[in-house]
Amino acid sequence: MSRPYNFSAGPAVMPEAVLQQAAAEMLDWHGSGMSVMEMSHRGKEFIAICEQAESDLRELLAVPPHFRVLFMQGGGLAENAIVPMNLAGLKPGGMMDFVVTGGWSQKSAKEAQKYGNACVVASGADSGFTAIPAASRWQLRDGASYVHLCSNETIHGVEFHELPDLKALGSDAPLVVDFSSHVLSRPVDWSRVGLAFGGAQKNIGPAGVTLVVVREDLLGHALPICPSAFDYQTVADNRSMYNTPPTYGIYMAGLTFQWIKDQREGALAGVAAMEARNVAKAQLLYGFIDHSQLYVNRVDPSCRSRMNIPFQLRDESRNDAFLAEARARGLLQLKGHKSVGGMRASLYNAMPIEGVHALVDFMRDFEQTLA
Amino acid sequence: MSRPYNFSAGPAVMPEAVLQQAAAEMLDWHGSGMSVMEMSHRGKEFIAICEQAESDLRELLAVPPHFRVLFMQGGGLAENAIVPMNLAGLKPGGMMDFVVTGGWSQKSAKEAQKYGNACVVASGADSGFTAIPAASRWQLRDGASYVHLCSNETIHGVEFHELPDLKALGSDAPLVVDFSSHVLSRPVDWSRVGLAFGGAQKNIGPAGVTLVVVREDLLGHALPICPSAFDYQTVADNRSMYNTPPTYGIYMAGLTFQWIKDQREGALAGVAAMEARNVAKAQLLYGFIDHSQLYVNRVDPSCRSRMNIPFQLRDESRNDAFLAEARARGLLQLKGHKSVGGMRASLYNAMPIEGVHALVDFMRDFEQTLA
Repeated sequence: MSRPYNFSAGPAVMPEAVLQQAAAEMLDWHGSGMSVMEMSHRGKEFIAICEQAESDLRELLAVPPHFRVLFMQGGGLAENAIVPMNLAGLKPGGMMDFVVTGGWSQKSAKEAQKYGNACVVASGADSGFTAIPAASRWQLRDGASYVHLCSNETIHGVEFHELPDLKALGSDAPLVVDFSSHVLSRPVDWSRVGLAFGGAQKNIGPAGVTLVVVREDLLGHALPICPSAFDYQTVADNRSMYNTPPTYGIYMAGLTFQWIKDQREGALAGVAAMEARNVAKAQLLYGFIDHSQLYVNRVDPSCRSRMNIPFQLRDESRNDAFLAEARARGLLQLKGHKSVGGMRASLYNAMPIEGVHALVDFMRDFEQTLA
Repeated sequence: MSRPYNFSAGPAVMPEAVLQQAAAEMLDWHGSGMSVMEMSHRGKEFIAICEQAESDLRELLAVPPHFRVLFMQGGGLAENAIVPMNLAGLKPGGMMDFVVTGGWSQKSAKEAQKYGNACVVASGADSGFTAIPAASRWQLRDGASYVHLCSNETIHGVEFHELPDLKALGSDAPLVVDFSSHVLSRPVDWSRVGLAFGGAQKNIGPAGVTLVVVREDLLGHALPICPSAFDYQTVADNRSMYNTPPTYGIYMAGLTFQWIKDQREGALAGVAAMEARNVAKAQLLYGFIDHSQLYVNRVDPSCRSRMNIPFQLRDESRNDAFLAEARARGLLQLKGHKSVGGMRASLYNAMPIEGVHALVDFMRDFEQTLA
């Protein structure tokens, strides 16, 4: 039986080839006689796995040499505290500026208040988080330690298609980017970024690994109350092995990185190939929604997410029937987040375009039965 | 080919049956069409997995109803900060008493200094951590928020074979126990415990899951700077799903719990069966070491660990040869921790007694070649 299509917002679908390799290697990794789960993190086998994963990630995202790659724990929600514990003290006053474009950046701003002077300098709340406030209207503060944004809002389906150039906006603060839910779906312009973080459980691998990519000059400024295990300097000095890292998750992430490297789309490879596919998948679903009478997506087209596509049925009494019939067709986990309602289709890297065609076909059939 | 015997101190050997089941279910858990890694943590499938894991753990360790079971992230090293961030404020003054019996409790005491008045009230340092100071000589402080100890020191091979009764020692502080490296190898006397925590990567499952078992009255006292994701009250209120939990690690832990439940040793089952085996395995190895001319374990017999057995070769020039020949016999990861040197054999639950026989046979042969 072919696998159903899984539209979960995360933890999310993974490439079938990656899961098959993991199953095949479960009891004996490369003749070592050990499962990856059983390896000491200080042994040569796991160190090789971890170094290969970092190297492949650097290649895929073109991470410059003056950025460090850290594999941590706690996910995006823990980083909401870990980032300010590390960076609030970059400048006197501990000012942190937040651009709030949905549920995730909202949570980040709230948590940061524990560690300094956190302020929302722009918000899409007035629009119900269906639009990103124009950068020219952000109230960036002089002397802020950093500016935070979430480059893809998983819940509200809002994505930055270009990162802001803070220098051009008159700020010399580093930009902190929560790229949890679209990392590796498109390139990153590192010239505009000071630190980027993301939970793994969308485009990277299993939940429990957190990726942090941080410019070296931002290390070494942690507040005294920052736990050692979450002090970026300590983590970097120990190559992510100060505490025992989530070894199996890093291994799965590494397999996913190799899978992305192997992907081709015409002349494109790696992240460029993923991006081309993600554009095509998103266009297919948005195009169908915009031409239907039943379904609606309210996000401004200029900032619609390629990864997370929330949509409503104009007749909400049909929601349960929609979900039940979708499931019967092998289309899983389409229920929307409770704060937005309706449906949400997450089209991460591992979702093939065939899955989106199957979804659109079902949505068309479902609409016709109501006609 | 049979699997080699893996004596790693952690991440460590896992039951072969658990790895086989995980491999078999990797692409499709129980007909769901999803890998466990691909499941939303809020879906009914994963919630069932998580609830079953908690229920089995409660049964195995006889956890009383007024304790909460939390699945967290960051391992023991992160808990060294998370515990004081949650419990230092239990009483005015933020006093925390540490009984230091090896490398791990030493680290815990140092980290806690960030969050209050942490004091070493007893230490085995004078003995080179080969003995536990008598409880009657601990300098427990009136009004301490809690007393911390590590009930099995993974590096120094020192184990508490009975937890102290703090009330009998004149203290009304709750006892915090780091049981990372011997959890589930023996029962726990919860009447003497306020909170116990442990990284999973020894007896529970893969690295990246941290088990916390905490008495309900200790919830709700976190310092204002405690990250929400690590506030025990928040984690408990959200049944370990405030942030996305390490879902696959929890699943593997659950498979391990089921495996332990299925173990029998004569009339004994579960943790009692594991304990009987662990006693037999430890006696076999200590008995051999104590009667050999080449090998030595310097820990006081009253507090020798059943789980982690460090030993030295009296002729240290033979260390490399020992490790190389052990590896050639399929006996892996026997090198000791750098702070102690020599060798270390970790005999966790998943190490069968056949592995200890194989180790002793090899050690005897190796000694004879030197005679």
